[in-house]
Parts: sequence; C-alpha cells; structure tokens
Amino acid sequence: MALTVGVIGGGQLARMMVPPAVGLGLEIRVLAETEGSSARLAATEVGDYHDAETVLAFARDVDVVTFDHEHVPQGVLRALVEAGVSVHPAPEALFVAQDKLVMRERLSALGLPVPDWARIETPSDLDVFLAEHGGRVVVKTARGGYDGHGVRVVTSSSEVDDWFAALPGPTGDALLAEELVEFRRELAQSVARRPSGEIVAWPVVESIQRDGVCAEVIAPAPGSAGRIADMAEAIARTVAEELGVTGVLAVELFETTDDRVLINELAMRPHNTGHWSIDGSTTSQFEQHLRAVLDLPLGDTGTHDAWSVMVNVLGGPATGTMADRLPAVMADQPGAKIHDYGKDPRPGRKVGHVTVTGDDLDDVVFQARAAAEFFAG
Amino acid sequence: MALTVGVIGGGQLARMMVPPAVGLGLEIRVLAETEGSSARLAATEVGDYHDAETVLAFARDVDVVTFDHEHVPQGVLRALVEAGVSVHPAPEALFVAQDKLVMRERLSALGLPVPDWARIETPSDLDVFLAEHGGRVVVKTARGGYDGHGVRVVTSSSEVDDWFAALPGPTGDALLAEELVEFRRELAQSVARRPSGEIVAWPVVESIQRDGVCAEVIAPAPGSAGRIADMAEAIARTVAEELGVTGVLAVELFETTDDRVLINELAMRPHNTGHWSIDGSTTSQFEQHLRAVLDLPLGDTGTHDAWSVMVNVLGGPATGTMADRLPAVMADQPGAKIHDYGKDPRPGRKVGHVTVTGDDLDDVVFQARAAAEFFAG
Repeated sequence: MALTVGVIGGGQLARMMVPPAVGLGLEIRVLAETEGSSARLAATEVGDYHDAETVLAFARDVDVVTFDHEHVPQGVLRALVEAGVSVHPAPEALFVAQDKLVMRERLSALGLPVPDWARIETPSDLDVFLAEHGGRVVVKTARGGYDGHGVRVVTSSSEVDDWFAALPGPTGDALLAEELVEFRRELAQSVARRPSGEIVAWPVVESIQRDGVCAEVIAPAPGSAGRIADMAEAIARTVAEELGVTGVLAVELFETTDDRVLINELAMRPHNTGHWSIDGSTTSQFEQHLRAVLDLPLGDTGTHDAWSVMVNVLGGPATGTMADRLPAVMADQPGAKIHDYGKDPRPGRKVGHVTVTGDDLDDVVFQARAAAEFFAG
Repeated sequence: MALTVGVIGGGQLARMMVPPAVGLGLEIRVLAETEGSSARLAATEVGDYHDAETVLAFARDVDVVTFDHEHVPQGVLRALVEAGVSVHPAPEALFVAQDKLVMRERLSALGLPVPDWARIETPSDLDVFLAEHGGRVVVKTARGGYDGHGVRVVTSSSEVDDWFAALPGPTGDALLAEELVEFRRELAQSVARRPSGEIVAWPVVESIQRDGVCAEVIAPAPGSAGRIADMAEAIARTVAEELGVTGVLAVELFETTDDRVLINELAMRPHNTGHWSIDGSTTSQFEQHLRAVLDLPLGDTGTHDAWSVMVNVLGGPATGTMADRLPAVMADQPGAKIHDYGKDPRPGRKVGHVTVTGDDLDDVVFQARAAAEFFAG
C-alpha cells in the first residue's frame, strides 16, 4: 500500500509537495481553504482548518498529517493527536512557531543567539525598550505575521497604537520588541529531522529581502564556508532537536556586522529560502519534508552545481499571469527552471519563482534575474 | 489562463508528465484506461481511447492532445484533427510509429541507415530472407509489439507459424524480417521538436537490455563523444524533421561491430531510455515533451553531473510493492532518485526506476544498481 500524506492548506508549499510525492509513489491529499487553490491538483477536500470535525474527517486513513502553513489552532492539532493521528510537526513544536513571544522565550532559554528582545504589554514597556536601544527598534505582533506584515520599525510607541488597541486578540496577548540588528546580510539555514532523530542540513543560504519579502536566495551563501556555515548549521540542529521539530525547519538568521549569527525567525515547514533545492539539491526540501514526516530515511542534501540562485516572481500592477509570459521567458532563458504556483497575480503576491543553477555565480544570477524580470513584465 | 494538455493513456509516461506540468503551471488532464491507473492523480476521465466520441469529449477545451502510448487508432486521431483539436505528434507522424513495416519503408526511402529488412507475407518469403542472411534472422509483428513482445529470433519459418496464421489481423498485414545485426551495444538518441521547427537533442545514451527489456541506461554513452554522438544526433534530427515528429522522439540504435550506427526502433513520445533526464538534465524529456507539443520554446538539455545511470525496477516473483521497500532503499542509498509508478508489481512489469547522477561512473552505476536490486528484493 502506498503511504498517504495529508497536507492541511492548499498553498504553493502543498503544491510543491506534489511532484516528489509522485516520484516516491506516495499518495498526497490536501485540505484546501478554497476551490482553485494553488495545490488544487491534489486537493481532495475543501474546508475550514479551524474546524476540528473537518480536519478529523480529512485525517482519516492518512499515515501522517502535515502542513502548508502554521495557522492550524492548537485545539485542532491536539484533537488530531488525541484521535491517534500522526501529526508532524507535533503541536508542541508548532506552538513555538505560532507565537513569536513563545519562540523568543524558548530560544533564549536554550541559550541560542537572538537579538535583544522584550515582551511588550503597554506603551510604557515599549518606551523603556526604545530608550535602552537607541530610540529605534523593531516591533512585531506575536501572531499572524508573514512577509513583512506584522512587523514595523518604530521610534515611538504611538506608531503601534493600533496593535496595542487590539490586545489581547488574534495577533497575540502582547507585542514583541527587538533591537534593530546591524547586519551584513540575512542568511537562512534549513534542516530536516525525522521523529526517530535523524537530521540532515542543506548549505546555509543568503536571503535578499525587498520590502520585507524574500526576493532572492543564493545557495550556498557566498563566502560562508567554515565558521559561518558551522554556526548556522549548529543553531538549526539545536533548534530542531531541542524543540522536537519534525519535517523541514528553516531558521532565518542575521549575519551581524560584528560577525555573530543571530536567529531572526523560524518556520517549521518548507520555506521560501529553500525553494532553490528543488533544482539545486539531490533532495529538495519538499521531498525531504515528505520523507521526514513519514519517518523515512532522509535523502542526500548535496548539490550538483556550485551555485543555485532563486528569484521570486511577484504579482505586479500589470495585468497578466505567468502563463502569458511563458513563451518569452522560455525563449530568453532556456536554462531557467520555472515554477508557477497557479495563483491569481495580485500585486505583491508571490506567484512563482525561477531557479538557475551553474558553476559561474555571476552568470547564474544574471539568468535567474532576467527570467524573473521577464515574468514581472 | 493556464495552458491545458490532454494526455491519452494513463501509464507511467503520463504520470511522469505531472511534475513538470505542476512546475510550469500547466493544467494536465489524463484519459486513463482504468481507475487506479499510474497517472491517476491527473486522470480526469476513464474511457476507451478506441472510441472517437470518448476521445472527442475528453479533448474539448484542451490546448493540445498528446499521448502516453502510440496505440490510438488513426480513425480516432483524424476525427480529433477534423474537429479542430491540436494533436501532437500528428496522425501522419504517428502512423509511421504504429507500424514497423511502414517505419522501415519510410526510413529506407529517406536513405537512413537501417538493418537489411524485408516485408514477409508468406513462409516462403521468410525462407528466402533466411537463406540470404545466414539462416538466422529477427522476425517482428508489424503492430502491437513492446518490450520484447512481437519479436523473435528464428532459424525456420515454422517458428512464426502462429503469426502467419493471424495475418492480416491486429498485428498487421504482413511480418517484418530483419538481419541479425552484429552490434557492440545498443544506443538511444532522444530529441524534441516543436511544430514550428525548433529541435534540441540530449546526449546519446547506452541502453542495456535484458530479455528484450531495457534494464539500464548510461547517459551519455561511454566513449560516444565525437563520431558516434554526431551520427546518432544527425539520424534523430533527420527522422524528426522528415517525418514531422512533434514532441519527444526516441530513436533506438545499434552500434555495430563494424562501427556503423543503424536504426532499430522509433518511439514518438518520452521513452524509457530518456528517464535519466528527470534527474540528470536541466530539462527532462517529460518537461520538454510538454513544451514541444504546446509549441513553447524548448529547454536546455545540458547535464549537471558527468554521468547519469538509470536502472529499471521490475515486478518480481516475490510479493510486495516498491512502497514496502522504501525505507530499506532510502537508508542504503540516500543519493538515489526513486520513481515509483504506483502499479501492481506483476512479474516482469516495469513498476519504477532509480536514477543516480555523479562524476564517477563506477560509483554511480554501483549506487543505482544497489538501489534497484533492493527494490527487486
């Protein structure tokens, strides 16, 4: 019998699990939020993941339940576990990824390197933190943020009045304030861990952000071999082991101007900074996630070419889909690996990505950017 | 709007078109012969491809119809074309691949290198051909053969009495006799051609057969660079252009002991000898086939590693599926790319394949064979 994976959420991460499931002979079923989701080919059900009954019915007869996103409520997750369903990552691990205050508390308790931070319940808490950190800090909602949403750089507590007014609420019961880290660049380290303990790591990558959204990834991060790579991998392995993460874990990192590596964010699922691995690594993060959550032996994370560069394609103000521009991009960049998520191209929305691999970094960057810019129109 | 490809036939070739369709944002629909086909994830309909009405209904609203196999009757193909459906490869091209006598006649007329052959209508025709070719020749049914079926090496016409008795019938209106070629090895050359003319070629590969079935493929064929590769590519390009093939064309070749390259068989679709390209080439034969039949610009056919080795997995006498052996194979060969076709493991049936790529051929062969043998049990 084919092993069956149930994925909650029908976004592009679920979509990109489909090809490796086909290869490995796994059955993949997706509980999508809407008809016509990005993962529609594998969507066996459309329903609300906040509803325990819906999720329990979906999880019947699957070998494991995993996720396209981290938003499934703890009550629903625990109902699954109580019903005997194998859930990976487990609710206890996901709890840490679902709330940035919990995450900071756990990482600090583990002695892992993080920016200075504070739990902020009132404007005066924030005023104190501002005064201690040069008058300019980052404030984040504890819950519900993504791609720059729920993150503001502020010089005065009045700049997050609306967030204070909403507390406690869907964004959490307090805010998180963090020092503005002086960083040289952003890195990301992905690892995968099986329930039985095996962990593998991909090379640490450089992540280039624009407007709070990941724009480009270079794998491996140039010049990272040695100390930086070792620190990044050690941090991610520790997080995976200590938090009991199963499946893929992505750790977003700052490489500071004083040569430290600090943890920025965690994601307990395949992550945008690992998309390069589909075309650049022997085992992609999507195949590895499927292996890991099924507790199957993990695949080789080596690379064939020296460099992989991934560039996101965002929906733009111009009308038109990636499909409209396929012929032009293919003609211009025959070596570009195109990934179209099958989503409506709303402005700023991630609708796809392009990866190019090769041994000359300048050439690889040029090709990947050219292809992505063609799509952007 | 996403481009839509309709595939007739639900075998593993249709199945392996699904991952690149997901990547490129194409919609893929499959007309499968049965429920639970290898391509079931994309099967939108189950029906009989001999029935024009079924196929016409399936083909409504697709941008192109293409094939998992070459068995769709000419009458059905022509009904599609008359209804205005884009069909690739076109009926005229497929006609040549559907009948080995027609193929030999066309290739000979084009002056392409083929083994000596003759059209055999009676036992006395075969006696004459035997006498002229050392008393031992190959006889093939014109239609319906695959994987060694419909092929016999004979020393007497009585050895194909059953085939004569069935003429004219489903195996054709005559038999094909061919000289027994003294060959050093078997090669295969795949190319892809768009309706608008662009052609690209992958490296020529070596195909190792066991019991008339492709067992292993080494890409590129060792020691083929130069004259052999040039001849193989020139032959395949000529076939594609002269026969008007669209999509992927695979040409099976003999490399003779006297250093000639002769055409053995043709397939106008992705082919077992091209499966290595999924993991070994920038653009796989399945992605390329989708691009080509949609008349989209073709992708780069370069390779990342020096060598790719593919080994087929056949159903064995032991019970059990590939799924049962996944953990053992993954633990033993973390670099093996596993492709499980999701088929019942009847003895001798191709149920999957394994590919390993790398720069040390001995090592790559060892890993690929080890993984495939683990599956065979």
